[in-house]
Amino acid sequence: MAAAPATIPPMNGMLNLAAAPPSLAALLAEQLELVSVVFERQLASDLSAVNALCLHVEHYRGKMLRPTLVLLSGLAGTPANVAEPAALTDKHRIIAAVAEMIHMATLVHDDVLDEADIRRRGATVNRIWGNETAVMLGDYLISNAFHLCSTAGDPAVNLALGKVTNTLCEGELIQLHHRGDCGVDEATYLEIIRRKTASLIAECCRLGAMVSGAPDRLAGALHRYGEALGIAFQIQDDLLDLVGEERIVGKSLGRDLDKGKITLPIIHFLRGASHAERGTALRLIAGGDAEALRQRLIGSGAVERAGRAAADLVDQAKQQLVAVPAGEPRDLLAAMADAVVARDR
Amino acid sequence: MAAAPATIPPMNGMLNLAAAPPSLAALLAEQLELVSVVFERQLASDLSAVNALCLHVEHYRGKMLRPTLVLLSGLAGTPANVAEPAALTDKHRIIAAVAEMIHMATLVHDDVLDEADIRRRGATVNRIWGNETAVMLGDYLISNAFHLCSTAGDPAVNLALGKVTNTLCEGELIQLHHRGDCGVDEATYLEIIRRKTASLIAECCRLGAMVSGAPDRLAGALHRYGEALGIAFQIQDDLLDLVGEERIVGKSLGRDLDKGKITLPIIHFLRGASHAERGTALRLIAGGDAEALRQRLIGSGAVERAGRAAADLVDQAKQQLVAVPAGEPRDLLAAMADAVVARDR
Repeated sequence: MAAAPATIPPMNGMLNLAAAPPSLAALLAEQLELVSVVFERQLASDLSAVNALCLHVEHYRGKMLRPTLVLLSGLAGTPANVAEPAALTDKHRIIAAVAEMIHMATLVHDDVLDEADIRRRGATVNRIWGNETAVMLGDYLISNAFHLCSTAGDPAVNLALGKVTNTLCEGELIQLHHRGDCGVDEATYLEIIRRKTASLIAECCRLGAMVSGAPDRLAGALHRYGEALGIAFQIQDDLLDLVGEERIVGKSLGRDLDKGKITLPIIHFLRGASHAERGTALRLIAGGDAEALRQRLIGSGAVERAGRAAADLVDQAKQQLVAVPAGEPRDLLAAMADAVVARDR
Repeated sequence: MAAAPATIPPMNGMLNLAAAPPSLAALLAEQLELVSVVFERQLASDLSAVNALCLHVEHYRGKMLRPTLVLLSGLAGTPANVAEPAALTDKHRIIAAVAEMIHMATLVHDDVLDEADIRRRGATVNRIWGNETAVMLGDYLISNAFHLCSTAGDPAVNLALGKVTNTLCEGELIQLHHRGDCGVDEATYLEIIRRKTASLIAECCRLGAMVSGAPDRLAGALHRYGEALGIAFQIQDDLLDLVGEERIVGKSLGRDLDKGKITLPIIHFLRGASHAERGTALRLIAGGDAEALRQRLIGSGAVERAGRAAADLVDQAKQQLVAVPAGEPRDLLAAMADAVVARDR
């Protein structure tokens, strides 16, 4: 494979471009580089203090999952469905940068909410500059995302990304509403993560294809692919928070339980537990004893069951790809879905 | 004057419609009611927990300064410059609601930053639901503001409001950067409040006129009017934080000093103080002794001097109105500028 330019952060874990055919990998690396330029240019301020903050946040970028999905869906949505640079336009790159910027904003604010100290192996904004600056920097990123989006000059794109960001915030608000609620059921959990994580990922896929002029049927299939992939992605993220290794994952772990977030393995465990087991688990959750709870969950098979739920969603995502013309972009979309459940970071 | 519909919150302090001619007051009351409908419809969610939060935030609305300026500039910007309902379009009302929603978002996040408990005589979101929910609700408001803005279908409006919100966030970030910095000078202070407060107010005036088809010269004059008015407004807000009465102002006061915000009266005082006075004042600031500092500031004339700076800006704002055709909208814009420095809340 062609070496990625040095300024592109390594795409660890989720997206390993080594799995892609060389020409497609090189095209994506080149396009992601252009997306990075759009991203950085948008955030450049005449105020050096603001630039210092944005520079720090740029280190958060890693997987570039959302931009990659915009670009790949853009390729998959072209009539030829081939890996041609000409298929990707400024509008694709703007949408890709906007989606990443919205995602960055949620990371910055999530870290405030989670009181997290580590993100991508570095200190979080709230850790270095305090919660106030992290709140405002997140706002600055959201605002810049919408401003950048407007430069595409396409009201339909603005409407779609505005709507999906509303949905994303609703997911976060409902998650906070259910904080510490051990009675939260699987359907509610799935609806929360559909909104807070999957909705933006799904829209990246749909818009990428739409901007390429794909028919609604194809754009719709890619939306459903992205939604299933996004839900699987968040289930895996929640699993890693519980049973991952901080050293490998590269961010603060065990925060979900500290913050009263009841995730899928816990929901499965509580549903299948005897009265006595349930009582013990609820005491461990209330006491925030993540380690003892983790041992019980691993022993019970609840972790594996949540893993299987993610794997099933990956299968559903891949089934949607039958609507996509065969070709390298489609193959890489399928490989990306598989990587969601294979990753350990 | 025609009685305002019951659902319109009373416009205290800044904007007293009793000062307006009856027909213009009735028109504005009716249009602000329509703006409220746009605002509330946008925030309606299928999630009851989200609706409860938005309902609470709607109580924050009071002066409706920004929507009123959009509407009045819309009237002032029409070729006839008369108080005719037909001069105001859906686009005016959308921009008015968007500006108010952006403003609401900043209030919700400011209250988190300031650890404020009271806003418009009621408990703040952070006080009732916690900082996490307040952060996410602010995000939800920003996102909805941009989504609503996109429904106007005019990329120029999206671009303008996106850009001004970037500027607003920069102002907040620079203010945080200078927190506790007693060496901050008048120029820096004015640049901070120009960005964080005046930029949005100025853009409300410019866009209101632009959407009415006003020539650039008129829209530019209204932008300068709004900018001077906005800076004066913030100087007065900062004065009230220092020497106002919480009972009258209706929000937590004295927070600026607690949060290390050095405002104009303090800058004036420190610049004019003897070496010994300055040393005493710096100790009072460092110790957060607002009451003792306040006594010294009042005695020194620094409060009056800051008040005069605001009054001078109001004069500058009114001078810009010579570019506006004579008529009731222009007269009310002038009265609104005067009200900025007359208000005690």
